[in-house]
Amino acid sequence: MRQEVIYYGGDYNPEQWDRETIMEDMELMKKAGVNYVSINIFGWKNIQPAAGVYDFTHLDWLMDLLHQHSIAIDLANGTASPPAWLVNQSPEMMPIDSAGQRLVHGSRQHYCPTSPVYRRAIQELTEKVAQRYAKHPGLVMWHINNEYTCHVHECYCDHCRMSFQSWLKQHYQTIDNLNHAWSTTFWSQAYSNWQEIFLPERMPTFKNPSQQLDYKRFISDMNLELFQIEKQAISAYSQMPIMTNLMGLHEHVDGFKWAKEMDVVSWNTYPNPREKVPYGQFLANDLTRSLKKQPFLIMEQATGAVNWRKINKRKAPGQMRLWNYESIAHGADGLMFFQWRQSKGGAEKYHSAMVPHSGKSTSRIYQEVAQLGNELAQLKELVGTRFVADVAIVFDWENWWALELDAKPSAEVTYIRQMMRVYQALRESHISVDFVHPSEDLSAYRLVIAQNLYMISAEDSQNLASYVKKGGTLLANFFSGIVDQNDSVYLDGYPGAFKEVLGLEVDEFSPLYPNEQGAITVEGQSYQTIIWEEELHLLGAVSLGNYESEGLEGMPAFTKNDFGLGHAYYLSTQLTQADYTKFFKHFLKEMNYQPPLQLIKVEEADVSITYRESETAIYGFILNYGTQQVKIAVLKEGIDLLSDQQVSSIDEVDSQDLRIIKFNK
Amino acid sequence: MRQEVIYYGGDYNPEQWDRETIMEDMELMKKAGVNYVSINIFGWKNIQPAAGVYDFTHLDWLMDLLHQHSIAIDLANGTASPPAWLVNQSPEMMPIDSAGQRLVHGSRQHYCPTSPVYRRAIQELTEKVAQRYAKHPGLVMWHINNEYTCHVHECYCDHCRMSFQSWLKQHYQTIDNLNHAWSTTFWSQAYSNWQEIFLPERMPTFKNPSQQLDYKRFISDMNLELFQIEKQAISAYSQMPIMTNLMGLHEHVDGFKWAKEMDVVSWNTYPNPREKVPYGQFLANDLTRSLKKQPFLIMEQATGAVNWRKINKRKAPGQMRLWNYESIAHGADGLMFFQWRQSKGGAEKYHSAMVPHSGKSTSRIYQEVAQLGNELAQLKELVGTRFVADVAIVFDWENWWALELDAKPSAEVTYIRQMMRVYQALRESHISVDFVHPSEDLSAYRLVIAQNLYMISAEDSQNLASYVKKGGTLLANFFSGIVDQNDSVYLDGYPGAFKEVLGLEVDEFSPLYPNEQGAITVEGQSYQTIIWEEELHLLGAVSLGNYESEGLEGMPAFTKNDFGLGHAYYLSTQLTQADYTKFFKHFLKEMNYQPPLQLIKVEEADVSITYRESETAIYGFILNYGTQQVKIAVLKEGIDLLSDQQVSSIDEVDSQDLRIIKFNK
Amino acid sequence: MRQEVIYYGGDYNPEQWDRETIMEDMELMKKAGVNYVSINIFGWKNIQPAAGVYDFTHLDWLMDLLHQHSIAIDLANGTASPPAWLVNQSPEMMPIDSAGQRLVHGSRQHYCPTSPVYRRAIQELTEKVAQRYAKHPGLVMWHINNEYTCHVHECYCDHCRMSFQSWLKQHYQTIDNLNHAWSTTFWSQAYSNWQEIFLPERMPTFKNPSQQLDYKRFISDMNLELFQIEKQAISAYSQMPIMTNLMGLHEHVDGFKWAKEMDVVSWNTYPNPREKVPYGQFLANDLTRSLKKQPFLIMEQATGAVNWRKINKRKAPGQMRLWNYESIAHGADGLMFFQWRQSKGGAEKYHSAMVPHSGKSTSRIYQEVAQLGNELAQLKELVGTRFVADVAIVFDWENWWALELDAKPSAEVTYIRQMMRVYQALRESHISVDFVHPSEDLSAYRLVIAQNLYMISAEDSQNLASYVKKGGTLLANFFSGIVDQNDSVYLDGYPGAFKEVLGLEVDEFSPLYPNEQGAITVEGQSYQTIIWEEELHLLGAVSLGNYESEGLEGMPAFTKNDFGLGHAYYLSTQLTQADYTKFFKHFLKEMNYQPPLQLIKVEEADVSITYRESETAIYGFILNYGTQQVKIAVLKEGIDLLSDQQVSSIDEVDSQDLRIIKFNK
Repeated sequence: MRQEVIYYGGDYNPEQWDRETIMEDMELMKKAGVNYVSINIFGWKNIQPAAGVYDFTHLDWLMDLLHQHSIAIDLANGTASPPAWLVNQSPEMMPIDSAGQRLVHGSRQHYCPTSPVYRRAIQELTEKVAQRYAKHPGLVMWHINNEYTCHVHECYCDHCRMSFQSWLKQHYQTIDNLNHAWSTTFWSQAYSNWQEIFLPERMPTFKNPSQQLDYKRFISDMNLELFQIEKQAISAYSQMPIMTNLMGLHEHVDGFKWAKEMDVVSWNTYPNPREKVPYGQFLANDLTRSLKKQPFLIMEQATGAVNWRKINKRKAPGQMRLWNYESIAHGADGLMFFQWRQSKGGAEKYHSAMVPHSGKSTSRIYQEVAQLGNELAQLKELVGTRFVADVAIVFDWENWWALELDAKPSAEVTYIRQMMRVYQALRESHISVDFVHPSEDLSAYRLVIAQNLYMISAEDSQNLASYVKKGGTLLANFFSGIVDQNDSVYLDGYPGAFKEVLGLEVDEFSPLYPNEQGAITVEGQSYQTIIWEEELHLLGAVSLGNYESEGLEGMPAFTKNDFGLGHAYYLSTQLTQADYTKFFKHFLKEMNYQPPLQLIKVEEADVSITYRESETAIYGFILNYGTQQVKIAVLKEGIDLLSDQQVSSIDEVDSQDLRIIKFNK
Repeated sequence: MRQEVIYYGGDYNPEQWDRETIMEDMELMKKAGVNYVSINIFGWKNIQPAAGVYDFTHLDWLMDLLHQHSIAIDLANGTASPPAWLVNQSPEMMPIDSAGQRLVHGSRQHYCPTSPVYRRAIQELTEKVAQRYAKHPGLVMWHINNEYTCHVHECYCDHCRMSFQSWLKQHYQTIDNLNHAWSTTFWSQAYSNWQEIFLPERMPTFKNPSQQLDYKRFISDMNLELFQIEKQAISAYSQMPIMTNLMGLHEHVDGFKWAKEMDVVSWNTYPNPREKVPYGQFLANDLTRSLKKQPFLIMEQATGAVNWRKINKRKAPGQMRLWNYESIAHGADGLMFFQWRQSKGGAEKYHSAMVPHSGKSTSRIYQEVAQLGNELAQLKELVGTRFVADVAIVFDWENWWALELDAKPSAEVTYIRQMMRVYQALRESHISVDFVHPSEDLSAYRLVIAQNLYMISAEDSQNLASYVKKGGTLLANFFSGIVDQNDSVYLDGYPGAFKEVLGLEVDEFSPLYPNEQGAITVEGQSYQTIIWEEELHLLGAVSLGNYESEGLEGMPAFTKNDFGLGHAYYLSTQLTQADYTKFFKHFLKEMNYQPPLQLIKVEEADVSITYRESETAIYGFILNYGTQQVKIAVLKEGIDLLSDQQVSSIDEVDSQDLRIIKFNK
Repeated sequence: MRQEVIYYGGDYNPEQWDRETIMEDMELMKKAGVNYVSINIFGWKNIQPAAGVYDFTHLDWLMDLLHQHSIAIDLANGTASPPAWLVNQSPEMMPIDSAGQRLVHGSRQHYCPTSPVYRRAIQELTEKVAQRYAKHPGLVMWHINNEYTCHVHECYCDHCRMSFQSWLKQHYQTIDNLNHAWSTTFWSQAYSNWQEIFLPERMPTFKNPSQQLDYKRFISDMNLELFQIEKQAISAYSQMPIMTNLMGLHEHVDGFKWAKEMDVVSWNTYPNPREKVPYGQFLANDLTRSLKKQPFLIMEQATGAVNWRKINKRKAPGQMRLWNYESIAHGADGLMFFQWRQSKGGAEKYHSAMVPHSGKSTSRIYQEVAQLGNELAQLKELVGTRFVADVAIVFDWENWWALELDAKPSAEVTYIRQMMRVYQALRESHISVDFVHPSEDLSAYRLVIAQNLYMISAEDSQNLASYVKKGGTLLANFFSGIVDQNDSVYLDGYPGAFKEVLGLEVDEFSPLYPNEQGAITVEGQSYQTIIWEEELHLLGAVSLGNYESEGLEGMPAFTKNDFGLGHAYYLSTQLTQADYTKFFKHFLKEMNYQPPLQLIKVEEADVSITYRESETAIYGFILNYGTQQVKIAVLKEGIDLLSDQQVSSIDEVDSQDLRIIKFNK
């Protein structure tokens, strides 16, 4: 079944409402252009009120009702919040936190990811749901669980300890392999057998880092096993696409690994309305799309305020619309909200919804929701088109985990913050990016950026080297290529994994305190440094920029190495955000970068220009995040999709407004 | 037995001292005007050295000794600190904290409030004490326990879980009622029976808010049950007044509910000597008096420094005296200290006392204590007179709990801080206030203020509406009238409970960050806003002031609605403290407020003028908290009670000094 | 066996490396002047791979190899990190933290200090090691365990509770004595027998302070028992010196008590490279030396960055060298590092070492290491010489514990910060100090300083009084002499223990908030006060300086009392650092202080001048911590030991450089 329209709608939890309200919902949905809802996400207790007892009366009615109203159904298996009867029957299914405390029922997501009780229960429940609704004509997608590991991303119960030991055995085969990988000769930590290994619970001081790293892999894998159990239970009955909603820049689920198991990727986006340009959401859109390199869905977002920040600001008029077009521009084929109607009670009652507490269609929020829904109906042809990018940033969840383990040279070097820095600098330079896993084929990219790629296997580092050797351009930065997949340092000089391709060696790291700054000079231009500097020695590379900072005066800071047919650049420090953008302007010129498409031109850094592409057309998106109207130059004749007007060579876009221009190929 | 003098004295713990010191105490008490002491508060181990063993030798001697020295006795039943032998015999009586850890013996107040062991033990102990001393001629009051829930305001033991389930069953009758009240259809939380319900222990994410709210009610009620057990044990033997010492602005005991069970209310006041005008103490005085609307006692305070702040400042010369007259002015009929003689050892040895470590009568502290004690002897006629106020602020502990649950629009809206803001603005406008429970008869008040009265039952909101309908004036502020007693939102437009009386509807909340400010204009005057703004629509009300803030320009901010014979005002934002006071000046004029008594006049905001009233006289209190001498206009002839001089039309009051002027009716 | 050279080397953990690397180590050690290494510190699992199984193959080889290369061996018994097999066999040996959580294996130092299992295991292991290597010719010292209580300084297991009860019984003999010492009549805490006593675990509020204090004594003693068990196991086989590495300003081990059990004292020093003049390290050098009043060893330090701060800066060129000469100047006879070769994996891989990750002898770090090692070879004659000081500061770990218990007048009065303040003021005045225990013979000192000596026994206070009576000079400051060894206040006026010798009485403490300042005037000079002021009355003393601060204007602040043949001064407040140094200049003049040696003269406060002394010579050390070259006046002819040049009357010392000048007696 092919998707024909941009999905629009939200989580729908009508268990909270009487039938009269639900009938009103059908009308309000229609007016708002809603064509897709997710149901049964928190339906467990409703459809299985007790052990062995199922009651589908309400869900049957609801499925039919939605289908009658032409609303496509994303049906959840309902495993996200185990009912009280199950918890009381088997309290050992509850996770134990790092303080050794077993959690209790009363919120949601309360289950140990390895619990046999929970695993049996979700398999049974999922089979029942799949069997009953596999052939329902309203069904378009399966929604498994909800936001895996959002709240529970560790468990220290006995069963998890046993499972961890099994996982390690499978991973390392012999205990000697594990001892070697974990460097257990240090601090007398060596194991004689698998049963001796503990979970990384409370210890007197710094824990074995490789053990911590494997535990993070284990947690992601154990949750993925849950997904697989549920997926298999569905697949036995249905061929419909299966997914779960990811969370963008969320640490505990290895996105690239999980995406392989999903038919569609989606994520839940909750930027703070306080931000003027929410680069975090932007980056996560690009990252989520990149997991499968195909269109994705926004599965959740807020129409206005959320309820879980200390101060929950509302969204300003127009803000919700503009940020949604950002997602469309970057490859989204669906825009959904949590949730349709704002709850009267419970923990999320102050989380905004498509229909606010007043329930009125005159409310500002409902009116903006309806405006957007009706606009999207005009944009059907965008469905399935591909985002255009020829620059790639390497992203690796395992590196994220390794980089942020304790006892590092500087706790200021955190992965997402560093990603944000390079991402913003590229956005402000009007460069569109994909994210890539270090093991991916990189040949299609003009430039690959290794940003704080601290941990990389020998094999993956070969992949990057071979990309350069064949003519690619690599830009690596400080504290990249330092350790292998076990967090063991590549010896004989940092950065061991990239020493050859970069043609240099780092003698000593020199982190800066938060209030310290240094500087480098590149082609007569000075750039302010923060966080990190280092003393490096050239082994073939040439210096394109040197330090001015105290203690490192005149030493190389920014270098270039010719390697095979390509070039490898190295930036040994971090620049302030403003100088980082300025640096990229210089760098793109230095590497002679030409964008793949040049149909629209704009100077302002806070105006975004990106493209989606089909077999026959190119769609240009111009989004004005600035506070001023801007002039854009359109270099080829096109059609404004929202107004259906021809676009001349110069167009004006208001602050907080956008254009979607179609160019025929 | 009627109280004839202003009680003056303190906690007396002579177990710590030898007989020689105790005899010296008798002399020093006499010199200081001490006429009342509280004993046996921490006497359990002394009078019951082992299970089933009682030894009253020392207490008998002490009671007689005090009586011989004409010192009235407030006798505690001694249950505040269970002895080590009891804890070791029944460790399950110890509370379990939110981290799942069982507390141990070694400080005080270590008991689970539902523990059957503890309940049996305090009943037995209290009966023994009551039986023995009910007829003692020195006894004037019974003191039960000490500062209930000061340290332990939660317990997560199995017995508390069972008790909570019973409490819920009693409250809700059916599990369906509970499911409805707790909105358990959300997040699949519904219960099939009472046994499935957990205490609100550690959970993965936001807990069910109604469950949290009921747990707070439960904890207050379980402690009240303790009080009732002890009270009944005494009542079987004695007709003397029974009380426990409350703690003013203390969250975990529902003051209005508890006060109904007490013959006298008292509280312990510990303002920071660093504060120049301790509005928190002032507010708590008014609140404590309002619990029964009759005179109260200061049961504890410090003569100088306390020991439990990080920095414990001493009280400046005169500070202790002035703050004590504040209490008298606002309805106190007794002033006691913790404690008589400063401890040599133990956890509170650096808490000041009436007799300091040096033990010397030449010490500054003892001398100020004696001065005050001797002054009070001149003020006997104040005993039993009533405080005069015709403005009421609604105060409700249950609303406090509900308002401060998590997942709200803004964590900056906290109850006591908001109470302090309005209270200070009224004080600076020379308005005296009572506090009222929302269910109270309000007809006697000229103005009733609903300050962040977020939660209110339909019945109580009817009480307020009917007060206005009959001619009353209501001033409500933002985030009032939002939810019912289960924390369920009143639908169809905020603030559901007050929409009709206020004649308006709020479309969307717009909280401000701590460093953000906006503004409103009222009659050409601009006021700075903080914390909260909102978009509201008039449904009959008229706007008296509009927003200037970005995004809300020109929208109504301060409104008035004619309702029945009365008027209901609404202030949709919070003003800075200075502007709030300024606003009240305007508002009191707008509502044409006239104070009930006009015998004394002063302009300065930091001079307090209040009145107490008997059948035959009115007593005016002028307290100068400023740094300058002030002139006060006395509009009717009176007598200065401390100097016994006639007071002319103009009088001068020094900085940090006071006058008490008696006017015959 | 007499030490002939300044020991130089580090912890050596070759278990991590292959034989080829180890052979390279031998060469690199030789080039760097390494003559001493500590091995087997974390060797337990290597030499005892399973219960009852020993394998010394690798250690035998290593001992012989080191000896062949003339490297002296400091052999550890290897008990610092129990192996996984032992933990799994007897999980009850793991400590339980203050949150009630039992720790797990996976880092190091995971053992309960009273555990019978652990105690049996370390005794057996130590005997095996001692028996095997007692006669090894390379052995020069025994190294027991490692950094006792560095990570684990409390345990709340049942066995610790029983051990605490036994310890208390031994200490107090009768339960009445304990009740009296702990002031248990307060808060009804009295005990009927030892079994009723709990460890100071989580309690509702402030814990009994005497109980907390005894628990700290208990923890230090229990760890000392471990040391003694291990020491006895060695002593049965070997006469070589035995020690463990202390940690300088570390709270949980009573240094004076422990030093009595050790043949040599050593400590691990980790100042932050960010500090320009690390007074903390300086103070700790003087303190560690003072524990035995004989030369000591630096057992660990970093060549560059550590790994456990948030931001780990490298050491600037020359910084490591200068700071090492500081240690030599103050009595060190050995300079060792953690560790020889930087680890490839594990928790400390980013902790710098003598050989960095690159393994290269061209690295800056290795080159500085080798330079220092080769210089030290010229300084053999310093071994065994004694540091020269005639001013003593009283230091007492028990006072540290007592002073920092909770519920004090001010939490700003912390022991080490106060020690640092007086120490820095003396250093800046070019005064060399010893530290003394309050029970020590003080007659050799010209001046004794009691800095916040809050707790002191009657006996020790007699020791100080008698020192003054016989002609000594005492300088005491505020909050000294307040309580006895049980934390019970000396009554009848503060400071009870020193009232007579100081000739005054304190009426009331008046702590200041961190942002508050006051002032005193001494001889027309004004000094800024912080943290603390007080109201005192003279009882014989004369005031040399009065308060200017609000509320204390004109009252005595700095006093002098003639007592016997000596003088006792009292400074009742704390001065800012700059004014404290200025004050000491005045004070030293006031007391007519003459330094014991006057061979070198310098004005600059950041240049250090100190002396070591042998039978025949005096060695002057000049260390320039300033940023400028300085001129020093040499008042007697001497020889520069590093250049072997005669030194004339004036010499110049560069910034960050030093001189060692030998003067013959």
